[in-house]
Amino acid sequence: MYDRVVVILTRKEFLGLLNERIHYLDGAYGTEFFRSGFKGVIEILNIENKEMVYSLQKAYVEAGVDFLLTNTFSANRLKLETLKVNYDLRDINYNAVKIAKMAAANKNVYILGDISSTGHFIKPFGEISFNEAYDVFKEQSEILLNAGVDGFIIETISDLKELKAAILAIRDLDDDIPIIAHMTFNKNGVSVTGTSVEIFVTLLNDLDVDVIGTNCTLAPEELVPVFKKISEYSKKPVSVEPNAGKPRLQRDGSVIYKVSRERFAICMEDFIEMGSNIIGGCCGTSPDHIKFMIEFLGKVKSKKRNILLKEFVSSRTKIKSTEPFLIIGEKINASGKKNFQRKIREKNTEKIVELAITQEQEGAHVLDVNLGIEKLLESSHFTTVINELDKVSSLPLSLDIQQYEFMEEALKEYVGRPIINSSTCKTEQLDKAIYLLKRYGGILILLTMKDKIPKTAKERAEIAKNAIKYLEKNGINKERVFVDPLVLPIGAKKDPYVTIEAINILSRSGINTSIGLSNLSFGMPNREALNSAFLALCINEGLSAAILNTSERSTMNVIFGSLMLKGIEITEKKKFFENPI
Amino acid sequence: MYDRVVVILTRKEFLGLLNERIHYLDGAYGTEFFRSGFKGVIEILNIENKEMVYSLQKAYVEAGVDFLLTNTFSANRLKLETLKVNYDLRDINYNAVKIAKMAAANKNVYILGDISSTGHFIKPFGEISFNEAYDVFKEQSEILLNAGVDGFIIETISDLKELKAAILAIRDLDDDIPIIAHMTFNKNGVSVTGTSVEIFVTLLNDLDVDVIGTNCTLAPEELVPVFKKISEYSKKPVSVEPNAGKPRLQRDGSVIYKVSRERFAICMEDFIEMGSNIIGGCCGTSPDHIKFMIEFLGKVKSKKRNILLKEFVSSRTKIKSTEPFLIIGEKINASGKKNFQRKIREKNTEKIVELAITQEQEGAHVLDVNLGIEKLLESSHFTTVINELDKVSSLPLSLDIQQYEFMEEALKEYVGRPIINSSTCKTEQLDKAIYLLKRYGGILILLTMKDKIPKTAKERAEIAKNAIKYLEKNGINKERVFVDPLVLPIGAKKDPYVTIEAINILSRSGINTSIGLSNLSFGMPNREALNSAFLALCINEGLSAAILNTSERSTMNVIFGSLMLKGIEITEKKKFFENPI
Ligand SMILES: [Zn+2]
Ligand SMILES: [Zn+2]
Ligand SMILES: [Zn+2]
Repeated sequence: MYDRVVVILTRKEFLGLLNERIHYLDGAYGTEFFRSGFKGVIEILNIENKEMVYSLQKAYVEAGVDFLLTNTFSANRLKLETLKVNYDLRDINYNAVKIAKMAAANKNVYILGDISSTGHFIKPFGEISFNEAYDVFKEQSEILLNAGVDGFIIETISDLKELKAAILAIRDLDDDIPIIAHMTFNKNGVSVTGTSVEIFVTLLNDLDVDVIGTNCTLAPEELVPVFKKISEYSKKPVSVEPNAGKPRLQRDGSVIYKVSRERFAICMEDFIEMGSNIIGGCCGTSPDHIKFMIEFLGKVKSKKRNILLKEFVSSRTKIKSTEPFLIIGEKINASGKKNFQRKIREKNTEKIVELAITQEQEGAHVLDVNLGIEKLLESSHFTTVINELDKVSSLPLSLDIQQYEFMEEALKEYVGRPIINSSTCKTEQLDKAIYLLKRYGGILILLTMKDKIPKTAKERAEIAKNAIKYLEKNGINKERVFVDPLVLPIGAKKDPYVTIEAINILSRSGINTSIGLSNLSFGMPNREALNSAFLALCINEGLSAAILNTSERSTMNVIFGSLMLKGIEITEKKKFFENPI
Repeated sequence: MYDRVVVILTRKEFLGLLNERIHYLDGAYGTEFFRSGFKGVIEILNIENKEMVYSLQKAYVEAGVDFLLTNTFSANRLKLETLKVNYDLRDINYNAVKIAKMAAANKNVYILGDISSTGHFIKPFGEISFNEAYDVFKEQSEILLNAGVDGFIIETISDLKELKAAILAIRDLDDDIPIIAHMTFNKNGVSVTGTSVEIFVTLLNDLDVDVIGTNCTLAPEELVPVFKKISEYSKKPVSVEPNAGKPRLQRDGSVIYKVSRERFAICMEDFIEMGSNIIGGCCGTSPDHIKFMIEFLGKVKSKKRNILLKEFVSSRTKIKSTEPFLIIGEKINASGKKNFQRKIREKNTEKIVELAITQEQEGAHVLDVNLGIEKLLESSHFTTVINELDKVSSLPLSLDIQQYEFMEEALKEYVGRPIINSSTCKTEQLDKAIYLLKRYGGILILLTMKDKIPKTAKERAEIAKNAIKYLEKNGINKERVFVDPLVLPIGAKKDPYVTIEAINILSRSGINTSIGLSNLSFGMPNREALNSAFLALCINEGLSAAILNTSERSTMNVIFGSLMLKGIEITEKKKFFENPI
């Protein structure tokens, strides 16, 4: 673990700066070095030609930037190996910080350690594991931190999973270092790995970073629609670094970028309009671009943004608002099913994938995953299932996992904003949930119980309200919590009306609720009839989500109808009834 | 119209007598005359051998009977024609009363005009019309009344429609003459026309008769289970006249009945236990049987009965408790359907019959019948539909008829206890409804409106409560009323919660409610979803019935589930989900 000797910039101070005015990042490094004739891996310059790096950075400092990036874009072990760089990783990164510091000397300029992709996809798309990527980022970040960076910028990353590994690596080293996290998107607002801007931002809102942004690939005009969504969805300050247009190969083999400094500066005004807090340039932008832009735009105060207050769940590729109602498919549940359990132990995920596809067709928004028999499993069983579902672009998951260690491994592996299912209201469990929610993001299902289930609705609501107070005190907003007021089998205990009353009390307090619907009819004949009738009453009282059997057409119909009664139009209404099994 | 000159026995006085103690009827006539060697139509004796009739009746009077029947069992025009009797109908009936009066002279014995079948089935099973049968009974009854009978007994009738014609005929002549109405059943408690004891009694509870009973066909032991149901279901005094066992043909061609007077008397104790108010003997019973029985049993007070308080709807062959929930199929409705209307005008009932069968398979309890386009129809269109449905043993009907005249013709023709759909709360409409309900029986759907639909739930409930008070004051118990608090299309007026609140208020006052469910989703997409969700809320508030689309599996499921939630077991649950279309 890195120990910061001199605290230069705390996260609070950093956010304080952004609150004062727009801050500027520098421009391109690679394209600038190439323009001046250099060919090769630019991080080598940190050792072979420090002067060249220093000159460019000095130019950026003189252009008026507030943040100078270290020349360490590719300076992680894996990437350097691919690039066949034999210099010591430590030297490259250490020198980069030192050069930047020199360039920034006596100016009010902060140094951001620049981190980007390892160049390898993480499993299931690539060969390296999440933990390997994490270690690679940690190794590089630790050097940068020790060398004295003021913060980090993670940029030009197109895989949300890799971004998550980088964020966790840095944050595990230092919980008070500012982090700017960027992802790179195609024109359609989707990354090459299928992750949309919305998925990226709604997860990053949870993760422990300070600024959310995007850079590279697109010219300013092309980046506008992408950044517009970041601006809408981000609950944190936002940043942007467009390219200076697409690179064009000239006859002599050199590359030029088509956007002039004037055009670049004018275009950048749009981002200021959208409330950007940090602005810089990516490939093709020169100190000239940056200087002109800063002079043109000025160090003005950032505009206020209208931030969307909705909550979302997501997988790598799919995102769903939790409103007006979240349908969580219950079928991936091996509890009590011998054959299913055997397949899971053998890491045969065929059935799970099949159930994922079926439930999506039936109209599920989220898939609950409960592997049962946890005592007989290892964490690799969970990560396998998560990766296999990720491969088929599954819906967002509700990770229905009992053991804390398995839950954490699953959350590490998971790409998107999941549901963490579940925690009781016991303080020790809440503490663990808080840790997981802060670290990995997601929404929590909170059971209205400690060791025992309270009998009355008032007691259940009360216990949940207190737990939510505790969560809010610890930085988890109540919007991230869905309270499950517990449905018991009607055969055993006839208290369905207790659950309904609890939903009523909680809803009136603006608290989201979710139930495990099918529990009601456990062991009863015609479960669909009972489930659908009960669900109508629950939704009428304000229920926000349910884990249920999406094959029950009546139940699905009742969801649609109950919301219609409340005057809520369902845009996905077709899903509710056009895909009955 | 007959004018009673001397009022001998009012209905109130008659019921007063029954309240004091058990009363006795006489025994057989035919079998007694045959035993003494007579062969032929026994009513001819009223003209050819008055002495023979007088002697038998005198013997019954001496045996201690309270009621002596006139020797007029077959003395209606149609039956006498069949029997090729040429004597004047008037003489036969008039003499019968005079002979009986002579036999009863100076004794405290009342004379009951004896009425039985015309020997012809009424349409649709036979050739004569309801009105023809009615006229035949009216003709005979008027003579008997003019001759001075104290009351009537209608007996040995196996067709409920014929019984209804006889009752209406007598009651239309005199609204204060006591009527005892009997039907005859097979051992299984079902008449040869398919009407069960329960169907018979639950309609007779409504019709304007004073005593409900059964006679003939079965020996006392066999009649016990049949009479047990009469005793349970009848809200009026009950009577019974068993045979003296089955007739056996002897070698000489004469017939004997196997139950001895001792055995008969002992068996009759069972009927006293079951609370019979009137007891007598049918075929095979002699003055000796009756005398021994009266001496053995004594003129004791009748036992109290436990009367079932449930309400039922029925067709000729099918009966359904209105509890816990009445599913009324909506599909026989020609409103707005050109093709359907054309077929109805052509009296082509194919489609109606098909819809009746389908809806029954889908789990309907009752079929709503709305022919639409009433301005283009005659009453024969309504009677045709009712008879065609009767032919296929349809479910009970909800007669959804606008014009009062058509409603009355339909009610005349209908066999069973229907739903009269509907009346508003306007006094003039209520008066008409009261007339129909008293005369033909049935359950009323009462709309919570006069000229306009009140906007609030409280107003709707209030208007209905006042109407029910008025109905009760006029002899229609609130159990016979289902209040419809009016469901409006959600598209037009978004007041579904007004309806739900009205159901709540009415239910808490112990008032039955019914809605036209599909009206809610008129013109909306996915009507099933909306209907099912809304119905769950309504049943939760206590809704007792709904006119709905039984093809909507979600809606049917929700009914079952909603009742299950309330802890109500549905015995017919299979119907709810095993017959989806
Ligand atoms: Zn770039
Ligand atoms: Zn008989
Ligand atoms: Zn008889």
